[in-house]
Amino acid sequence: MKQRVVSGMRPTGRLHIGHYHGVLENWIAIQEQFDCFFFVADWHSLTTEYADTSGIKDSTRDMVLDWVAFGLDPQKSVIFEQSQVAQHAELNLILGMITPVSWLERNPTYKEMLDNIEQRDLSTFGFLGYPVLMAADIILYRALRVPVGHDQLPHLEITREIARRFNHLYGQVFPEPEALLTETPKLLGLDGRKMSKSYNNSIYLSETAEETAAKIKAMVTDTQRIRRADPGDPERCVAFNLHRIYVPQETLEEIVPACKSAAIGCVDCKKILSDCINERLAPCRARRVELARDASFVDDLLAEGSRRAAAVAATTMQDVRAALKV
Amino acid sequence: MKQRVVSGMRPTGRLHIGHYHGVLENWIAIQEQFDCFFFVADWHSLTTEYADTSGIKDSTRDMVLDWVAFGLDPQKSVIFEQSQVAQHAELNLILGMITPVSWLERNPTYKEMLDNIEQRDLSTFGFLGYPVLMAADIILYRALRVPVGHDQLPHLEITREIARRFNHLYGQVFPEPEALLTETPKLLGLDGRKMSKSYNNSIYLSETAEETAAKIKAMVTDTQRIRRADPGDPERCVAFNLHRIYVPQETLEEIVPACKSAAIGCVDCKKILSDCINERLAPCRARRVELARDASFVDDLLAEGSRRAAAVAATTMQDVRAALKV
Repeated sequence: MKQRVVSGMRPTGRLHIGHYHGVLENWIAIQEQFDCFFFVADWHSLTTEYADTSGIKDSTRDMVLDWVAFGLDPQKSVIFEQSQVAQHAELNLILGMITPVSWLERNPTYKEMLDNIEQRDLSTFGFLGYPVLMAADIILYRALRVPVGHDQLPHLEITREIARRFNHLYGQVFPEPEALLTETPKLLGLDGRKMSKSYNNSIYLSETAEETAAKIKAMVTDTQRIRRADPGDPERCVAFNLHRIYVPQETLEEIVPACKSAAIGCVDCKKILSDCINERLAPCRARRVELARDASFVDDLLAEGSRRAAAVAATTMQDVRAALKV
Repeated sequence: MKQRVVSGMRPTGRLHIGHYHGVLENWIAIQEQFDCFFFVADWHSLTTEYADTSGIKDSTRDMVLDWVAFGLDPQKSVIFEQSQVAQHAELNLILGMITPVSWLERNPTYKEMLDNIEQRDLSTFGFLGYPVLMAADIILYRALRVPVGHDQLPHLEITREIARRFNHLYGQVFPEPEALLTETPKLLGLDGRKMSKSYNNSIYLSETAEETAAKIKAMVTDTQRIRRADPGDPERCVAFNLHRIYVPQETLEEIVPACKSAAIGCVDCKKILSDCINERLAPCRARRVELARDASFVDDLLAEGSRRAAAVAATTMQDVRAALKV
């Protein structure tokens, strides 16, 4: 039997290629091998976005269109919305009863965000408790594996501790989920910083080929290559971090020496890049346009997936209630 | 239209006459005048009893039998179980997102209990958050009134603050519930301390007339009245605090001078008391024996009541989701 995997994304709207290579590509890859539950973590959005929730619905729609257009398959995986499965809230409530406040206060991400995020007031009970909700999300489906990067291992450790504490108090109900470690390539944005919607430096999966071409064309390259005739260095070129991913190896083997000898100019070199990106994304982009024509596609898909998720969640909750004796 | 009232009790098992005069009698009295929702607060039990939940189910059954036998009417009031209505957990999750941790930390009961209760570890996320759950319990039904004693007014204030904050952030969904102040007579236990199951000094609604008579017979009276011939003083007599409630005024007017003149002895005087208590409780006790014969009576009643409660809760949650835009 396939091991079960659970993973979620906050509804952040249209995904950029950083999201794709960082998370979605891996989700798509593991669909065959694992019994996958992928969810829109809309309750989690409230932990930080509670003061302005106006974008959550549209962001959900945009994100799920990207998921499916680029390869998540609702026949293979259960794709659902956290807020549509009431058992997430129920298990969250129960797990909160057994989770020491100190475990939450010592969570490094919590302290870091409280200190660093100044535009929003994050001193809420819900933000303090987000690792409890995360634990509920995962163990509700008795996941054995959770795809995480190395930096997220502490989060998974809190989930494991909470599951262990439940089992200790009430008897064995939950497996302790283990990490499914994923390599996440560092992908820089158009300006050399981390690719992020808020930096306005992203290439979106769902944008048009023309939009992508225009963004790439405007990218800064090797800042020390002032004139066309100056030799360049791909290691100093922000665009080259995208070449590495999108341009085929044999083309790279021509481009790199040509850059260093000034045989190729940045404009031409970036044209090669944007053509490669657009070519790679074209079939999924076309599929997304098709899917988006059906205004109820995402709603229907999430409703159906949430029904399937709720059926599994209900079975777990029967065991939880029996163990708790309530 | 009748104003809606919501109130709950933790499942504490068989109720004693202190519970009756402190809470249940008032619930019974307001059933006609208000649209009442009364619930078994079993999730709340977990805030303090999470380490041993073995008694919750039986306590629920015993308590609900007392409720109904002594006069709560499932035709007039919605009688339900918190854990059977998933919307309590959902609204709790949402309200947690907008509740500052500082509101919870400054809750006087929280600090007091953390300091005073040493047998149990109450430093959990759920215990910190119990005022959020309480707010959810109340505003989920858009209650306008909540029966409270003066000492519980601070709890209601947190509920009102949370409702206000929700309305401020997302638009008017919840009325701010107001107190329905109830007079709770100070009722002492058999040993002169507060009547409490843990002090083993209680008269239970559901005990037999013989049990009550034996307990009253063994009560200490005026400790300064050593011999039968000594004059007594009802003000120094613990039993007399029960006389005041259970013995008719005209009988009291005979007993008090008879005690002071030593015309009546404590044994006879307590016999009068236990007869009065038993006479008053007899019809409800008989009814309770009847109800208890049907092993599924409480389960059926709570299932039906919880269905009715969930229907109201679902309507509120539709408005909550529309306001939240999720």
